[in-house]
Amino acid sequence: MNSPIGLFDSGVGGLTVAREIMRQLPNEDLVYFGDTARVPYGSKSKQTVLKYSRQIVRFLRTKDVKAIVIACNTASALALDEIAAEIDIPVIGVVKPGAKMAVETTKTGNIGIIGTESTIKSGIYNDYIRELNPDITVVSKACPLFVPLVEEGLLEDRVTEDIVARYLQEMKEYKVDSLVLGCTHYPLLRNTIKRFMGDGVRLVNPAFETAKSLKELLGEQGLLNPNRHKPEYEYFVSDGVDKFISFADSVLPIHVNDTKVIDIESY
Amino acid sequence: MNSPIGLFDSGVGGLTVAREIMRQLPNEDLVYFGDTARVPYGSKSKQTVLKYSRQIVRFLRTKDVKAIVIACNTASALALDEIAAEIDIPVIGVVKPGAKMAVETTKTGNIGIIGTESTIKSGIYNDYIRELNPDITVVSKACPLFVPLVEEGLLEDRVTEDIVARYLQEMKEYKVDSLVLGCTHYPLLRNTIKRFMGDGVRLVNPAFETAKSLKELLGEQGLLNPNRHKPEYEYFVSDGVDKFISFADSVLPIHVNDTKVIDIESY
Repeated sequence: MNSPIGLFDSGVGGLTVAREIMRQLPNEDLVYFGDTARVPYGSKSKQTVLKYSRQIVRFLRTKDVKAIVIACNTASALALDEIAAEIDIPVIGVVKPGAKMAVETTKTGNIGIIGTESTIKSGIYNDYIRELNPDITVVSKACPLFVPLVEEGLLEDRVTEDIVARYLQEMKEYKVDSLVLGCTHYPLLRNTIKRFMGDGVRLVNPAFETAKSLKELLGEQGLLNPNRHKPEYEYFVSDGVDKFISFADSVLPIHVNDTKVIDIESY
Repeated sequence: MNSPIGLFDSGVGGLTVAREIMRQLPNEDLVYFGDTARVPYGSKSKQTVLKYSRQIVRFLRTKDVKAIVIACNTASALALDEIAAEIDIPVIGVVKPGAKMAVETTKTGNIGIIGTESTIKSGIYNDYIRELNPDITVVSKACPLFVPLVEEGLLEDRVTEDIVARYLQEMKEYKVDSLVLGCTHYPLLRNTIKRFMGDGVRLVNPAFETAKSLKELLGEQGLLNPNRHKPEYEYFVSDGVDKFISFADSVLPIHVNDTKVIDIESY
């Protein structure tokens, strides 16, 4: 119960999930791994994403984690089921909690999903949503330029507006009223997406929902840390500590300075 | 002399270099490796790019190659010197040939270099150019959105024009008359870049210059294949054969169908 929670992402984006967990579970210690050397996962095959995820899980288990959060939508889409079947601690991804919230909030019954190429191609959001309610219409769209636009800092720019309008035109045509931001970078484009989609559309951020689900899951399994204490957060990456720290400083409520680089291929 | 030439790139872009070699050295067999699992290299650290390059060189040497072409600007910038010092066959990159051509063609003495973040940060184009002529002014600029725009197929689009204008405004202000397209994807934006820069600016494509330099080098060292024959081309990637083949079909004069996936991390 006093062990940390392990989180991983293809890079820095999963820190938005870490942030929600820090807020909603303030007694929990965390070990974060960002695969900054091999980022992005969104254009890779299932086979490769699964291989990388397994290496990361092996690394996280050396830290004696009590549960694993796959904070990357692509890895949640392509690797969660296999990982969960292979290990004996709870594993949670960001896809299911996001899909659940979308189903709970839609009134028109038309849900939009945006994400990386690999996430969308996997069809996993559709599968989860149809399991919850087979009458719902799911409109999904890969938005490969969103991550590079965010990384270039063009969060509110005429170019980003233009690209948002092209990718999301269909969502409007289908009268989607609940749109899942199915990639950790996308919540940073929330304002631009909101302006285009209009106030009637609910933007679902899986990071928030994931932290909520994690809290429930740990509670059910008696794994919540009962000790009120200043939590310990450890950060590991596979490349580029400087970049990671500067992104972390812009996302997290605390300063990160003890990030370590590890050789993830050796796990 | 009958052994193949080994080429590698972070992904598919190096096929533009392979194409030039096929044209200029029609008797040579080639082994191409594209690191499609770990692409892109342009945002990675020197340490990681060097590690990946060493793994790839070890793989290529299992194919008994007589020379190695680093067809990726970032790997040429960050790993060429170390690799060349470590092995006993010739190694050639794309940076030096591109830099040389830029120096030979400039009249104003102002050369522009565009490339990935890591290539530009390395300062290597500047170093080579200054070695050749210390009086030249080098204006360099990282253009991180160019690769995603090319991969999204937006070669001639108002968004691409807008981004080109922002990145290259400085090049105009400095009256650059020779601009090195220092990333294998950039020649695909040639028309849009040309329209913005104007006819007075020479666009240097390192792929073409590299094939020329390779021919000279193999000639000097007596390594040219003297046998007129239908050359053999072999392709290896670390992920995603389908995508690779479809890009290859759009770039190469021949159809590629026997691409193999290898586990590059094990080399």
